[in-house]
Amino acid sequence: MTNWTKIDQTVKRWIQEAGTNIRASFTSSLTIQAKSNPNDLVTNVDQETERFFIENIRSEFPEHRILGEEGQGDRVQSLDGVIWIIDPIDGTMNFVHQQRNFAVSIGIYENGIGQLGYIYDIVHDELYHARKGHGAWMNDTPLPKLEKAPVETAILGISATWLINNRHFNQEKLVQLAKDVRGTRSYGSAALELAYVASGRLDGYITMRNAPWDFAGGKMIVEEAGGIVSTIDGGEIDMLSVNPVFAAAPGLHQDILKKYLT
Amino acid sequence: MTNWTKIDQTVKRWIQEAGTNIRASFTSSLTIQAKSNPNDLVTNVDQETERFFIENIRSEFPEHRILGEEGQGDRVQSLDGVIWIIDPIDGTMNFVHQQRNFAVSIGIYENGIGQLGYIYDIVHDELYHARKGHGAWMNDTPLPKLEKAPVETAILGISATWLINNRHFNQEKLVQLAKDVRGTRSYGSAALELAYVASGRLDGYITMRNAPWDFAGGKMIVEEAGGIVSTIDGGEIDMLSVNPVFAAAPGLHQDILKKYLT
Repeated sequence: MTNWTKIDQTVKRWIQEAGTNIRASFTSSLTIQAKSNPNDLVTNVDQETERFFIENIRSEFPEHRILGEEGQGDRVQSLDGVIWIIDPIDGTMNFVHQQRNFAVSIGIYENGIGQLGYIYDIVHDELYHARKGHGAWMNDTPLPKLEKAPVETAILGISATWLINNRHFNQEKLVQLAKDVRGTRSYGSAALELAYVASGRLDGYITMRNAPWDFAGGKMIVEEAGGIVSTIDGGEIDMLSVNPVFAAAPGLHQDILKKYLT
Repeated sequence: MTNWTKIDQTVKRWIQEAGTNIRASFTSSLTIQAKSNPNDLVTNVDQETERFFIENIRSEFPEHRILGEEGQGDRVQSLDGVIWIIDPIDGTMNFVHQQRNFAVSIGIYENGIGQLGYIYDIVHDELYHARKGHGAWMNDTPLPKLEKAPVETAILGISATWLINNRHFNQEKLVQLAKDVRGTRSYGSAALELAYVASGRLDGYITMRNAPWDFAGGKMIVEEAGGIVSTIDGGEIDMLSVNPVFAAAPGLHQDILKKYLT
């Protein structure tokens, strides 16, 4: 049987260590390579951080598989067994331009079921974490269960992209939603925006294209805080593919789905 | 002659004191009153902080006038003499929902000319400040002079509102700009977004409706960092009215004006 307590303690230690290294990199100059898309910057720190996790996981838990953004993990084509889904730095553009608004994201799934989730906002030293059935936490503070929020007072995380250039979904419906909520925000890090939903800083978050490493940690944490995470039309998220992701407080999730998304 | 060094030292002391009080309020429960518009929340902390500054200014600099968001200052109808333009908490909705992404903003103008500017990001303990002719600073670190940035690699601060529901300006032009830049962000605090332009975390910021207390501090700081602040069509900002505000790095400001805004 998988010893989740041991894994949880081990991940937390590794995350703190990765955070220390990433913080130290702020003073050294970064080597930035443009990936195929200039929106998708990658730094040496990204790759080193992923390698750090992969080497540790392979040594400590050799039977587990790893799906990582930087592509140094395994070719994962089924959800069997224990899978670590890792984004070493979610929000790389922010990391490079701002030295804030980025996070380490890790989700650990067993046979497709989320067991552990972590989002570490390094600059704020805020570790959001969750364990299946044990609730969600920010550092040592349990996150209160999310409460029903009406659309008119909601603050919604959504990138302007999906309101002006959306080839994946009915743009008009999203625009109407953005007009009806109290305010929108956009931080440029899916992991952080999911952590903000879990902690009530945002009431909801919508994105059209998220990869598993963007949402694997956050999905666990939002769900354990009492929120709901689905595809844009309320379907189940596929943990091995790019998905549209819609996370929100309960009640609000249902209202938005019914009035705007279906 | 006005002793700007003395004023500068005094403001910095007051801002630190206000920051300490605001931080302390996080643990006490907030009394929130809805203003006429539910987007415009106001808390007792806002009003107390404004009162704190007003009482201090009146006692220390009785000949100066005060223009403040919470309306406890003077009726200022000309720019003659020394005027303090104060937003005790810019980003009140963030303050209430997030306990971050808000700032104290102060600009001090003499006969319409900016002399001192302050934006204090309390949670990060980052005081952005500038004095005319002396450059811009973040705490004790001088901000490097902003460099020319091309549109394609720029990160632009802009609220989704101006891209989907803009009655003040040609929406199509702004949408094209938002499509052409590398990314957009929206934080919900004009003061912070201007501080981010000054420090290079954003390359530009556009808003259609800003009151003097939203931009008085930030305009000074961006300009002293080498950036340009104008109305949306490149005109001069009126320090006594609501303005559309466009702040950007040099070069980028000119390019965006020419290609998208005029």
